[in-house]
Amino acid sequence: MATPAVMPSFSDSDRAELAQEADALIQRLRRHGRGEDGSVTRLVYTAAWQGAMAEIEDWFRAAGLPVRSDAVGSRFGRLSGDSPEVVLSGSHIDSVVRGGAYDGVLGVVIAGCAVHWLAATFGRPKRTIEVLANCEEESSRFSCNFWGGRAMTGRILEGESDRLTDPEGVSIGSAMRACGLDPERIPEAERADLVAFVEPHIEQGPVLATAGDVIGVVDQGVGVRGLSISLQGAAGHAGTIPMARRRDALTGAAEVVLGAERIAKEQGAPAVATVGHLTVEPGGFNQVPGSADFTIDFRHPNEAALDRFEASLLRMLEKVASGRELEARTRPLIGQPGIRFDDHVCACLETACQEAGVAWRRMPSHAGHDAQLLGSICPAAMLFVPSQGGHSHRPDEYTEVAHIGYGIEVLARTLFRLAYQD
Amino acid sequence: MATPAVMPSFSDSDRAELAQEADALIQRLRRHGRGEDGSVTRLVYTAAWQGAMAEIEDWFRAAGLPVRSDAVGSRFGRLSGDSPEVVLSGSHIDSVVRGGAYDGVLGVVIAGCAVHWLAATFGRPKRTIEVLANCEEESSRFSCNFWGGRAMTGRILEGESDRLTDPEGVSIGSAMRACGLDPERIPEAERADLVAFVEPHIEQGPVLATAGDVIGVVDQGVGVRGLSISLQGAAGHAGTIPMARRRDALTGAAEVVLGAERIAKEQGAPAVATVGHLTVEPGGFNQVPGSADFTIDFRHPNEAALDRFEASLLRMLEKVASGRELEARTRPLIGQPGIRFDDHVCACLETACQEAGVAWRRMPSHAGHDAQLLGSICPAAMLFVPSQGGHSHRPDEYTEVAHIGYGIEVLARTLFRLAYQD
Repeated sequence: MATPAVMPSFSDSDRAELAQEADALIQRLRRHGRGEDGSVTRLVYTAAWQGAMAEIEDWFRAAGLPVRSDAVGSRFGRLSGDSPEVVLSGSHIDSVVRGGAYDGVLGVVIAGCAVHWLAATFGRPKRTIEVLANCEEESSRFSCNFWGGRAMTGRILEGESDRLTDPEGVSIGSAMRACGLDPERIPEAERADLVAFVEPHIEQGPVLATAGDVIGVVDQGVGVRGLSISLQGAAGHAGTIPMARRRDALTGAAEVVLGAERIAKEQGAPAVATVGHLTVEPGGFNQVPGSADFTIDFRHPNEAALDRFEASLLRMLEKVASGRELEARTRPLIGQPGIRFDDHVCACLETACQEAGVAWRRMPSHAGHDAQLLGSICPAAMLFVPSQGGHSHRPDEYTEVAHIGYGIEVLARTLFRLAYQD
Repeated sequence: MATPAVMPSFSDSDRAELAQEADALIQRLRRHGRGEDGSVTRLVYTAAWQGAMAEIEDWFRAAGLPVRSDAVGSRFGRLSGDSPEVVLSGSHIDSVVRGGAYDGVLGVVIAGCAVHWLAATFGRPKRTIEVLANCEEESSRFSCNFWGGRAMTGRILEGESDRLTDPEGVSIGSAMRACGLDPERIPEAERADLVAFVEPHIEQGPVLATAGDVIGVVDQGVGVRGLSISLQGAAGHAGTIPMARRRDALTGAAEVVLGAERIAKEQGAPAVATVGHLTVEPGGFNQVPGSADFTIDFRHPNEAALDRFEASLLRMLEKVASGRELEARTRPLIGQPGIRFDDHVCACLETACQEAGVAWRRMPSHAGHDAQLLGSICPAAMLFVPSQGGHSHRPDEYTEVAHIGYGIEVLARTLFRLAYQD
């Protein structure tokens, strides 16, 4: 077939129809893991996750895209091309605890709509296109550190499926088996056929919404590290232990929480540090806390700055622990290096934005994404659509339907360049 | 029968035998709610609690003491006297979460051993004696604020059995019904027949152990207050919300934790403040905390000092919340005024210590106890035995068997005075 330099047709009514299809699917998918407050909790390998994946599979098939699952349960809707080389696009299905209906899933839906339209309009591409519904990205049930992305890039270590456990003590391997997946086959998920990856995603921050831009061409991904910290002191009776004789693990943790905040502020934007998780034992109101377990998530686009950030946090922790006679244990929870995304893929996204006549900007991502992993094995970049109010990881996450339509158009134009032209 | 001024007989072998009986019972009772680490978690109206109460009932009956339960499930082993006036002695059966085997229960066991010996040695007393196995004192499952003691003193409010719920949302009324107790009958638990209450208890602090004393005659009880605090900020994504734009509930809670510690230290001993319980929502490592719920337990023997303490804590909370744009909600969790115990009961305890030839001291209690409630309706005081290492509310709580023997002797001599003489 002919492959013109500029994609010939993408009408306003195409955009409106596809945006409606995407929005309807988002609303159907939010049923899987819906909480009473409208939040979505769709943790990997749970019933809610299985329900969402089944719905995605049906939708892929209805769009004429045959579906397969890889060894860790990520689904791929395939539009076969002349070449077995694959241009991949999509995002993840899982959510954080009490998150929203858009983070991850909207990227799957935008990619599916774009590829459905390309298939219907232009038929078979030069290169094969696959729509990715990645099994896991959020580390919200297990400390996965990008389970789906690591499977595709061959980075899951032997024995990890037994070692990683959820708060109930279920290993990720046994959670996989309960979904009919065999942890022994994880190495088969590694991909050697990818020639490009484009990940559409909500921005999760306020930049686009504040500037009035509709599309972000993401050329850089922030480096993300996570530490899991356990402070051990001495539990005891809240009445009988004088203040001067306490080894209270929670007062120590409180100093570390404030210390992490102070260090991030001293480093200055774009550095951020967050203690999002904290538990106290034994936990009675009349018991001096004997132990406190918590996490520190810290981010910076520059690896050297991230190293300095980590060193400052660990020095501060050490000082707090020794000042309060607490024992500190630290282990890495997550580590995702910063990345500069591929120039050519970014250029295709920019051209697509210009063709679509949409307000756009280049920008970095302050969240960790699968594109950072896949970008290490093939050219990759990301496309952001606005998050209303800059909100994310919250029940009120929302992206306007019109913005979703522009996201589909820009992605369709980009995938056209990457899979039908070039 | 004859009632000499000094109790005629309590031999070394009596003491050793009773101490062995007490220790064996403590070891049997620790099975009810035992954790893998040797801790005891025996929360009111649970299966572990029911098991311990059944074992106590059997033991009372074997000692010749008929048993009855009051409306809230506290058990009373009765040695009837010439008069229906009751001299009560004992303590509580419930524990904190992951506490030890001695707090509360040892007081029941010491009282039971003392009364068993008195009955066997002297038969029927002038006044009736009852051994108390109180259902609930620790507020470790529900925010009970002394459920058993308030039932006996007529202080449980109408509707409270529906309002008080455990972390799983079970109301204390429905937990009662599951144990065959009828919340409608709570008012029947009120006592008008008490003429004295003596509560034996472990010290839960280091004073006796450090001084080498074996018995504490407790003439004063600390005032205890508890606040339940909820801080509400804005949840969000740990990567995309700049530090300067956060309303992080946990950093606010951390400031309050350290503020409470600072205020208690500024007030100086014996003031203490403890944040023992803290939970964070939504709780993911990559989510800025939107809410933090925690408690502050604070204590001082002097009511006016306690008022000033509370005012300082609330001012500090207010300042933290407004500085971080957080919404703070506060509700009282527990409130137990300080008390000066009864002179005559204390004098009986002192005389008993002298007769037993044991090293003893007068001292205050820094923990809240049922004696503070019962002391408002009848003359009351407490008897402390040492806590090894000053430890309490921990799995390694321990009182030496020899010290338990002296506790039984001193209590037997005291109850002899209160129930056979006077």
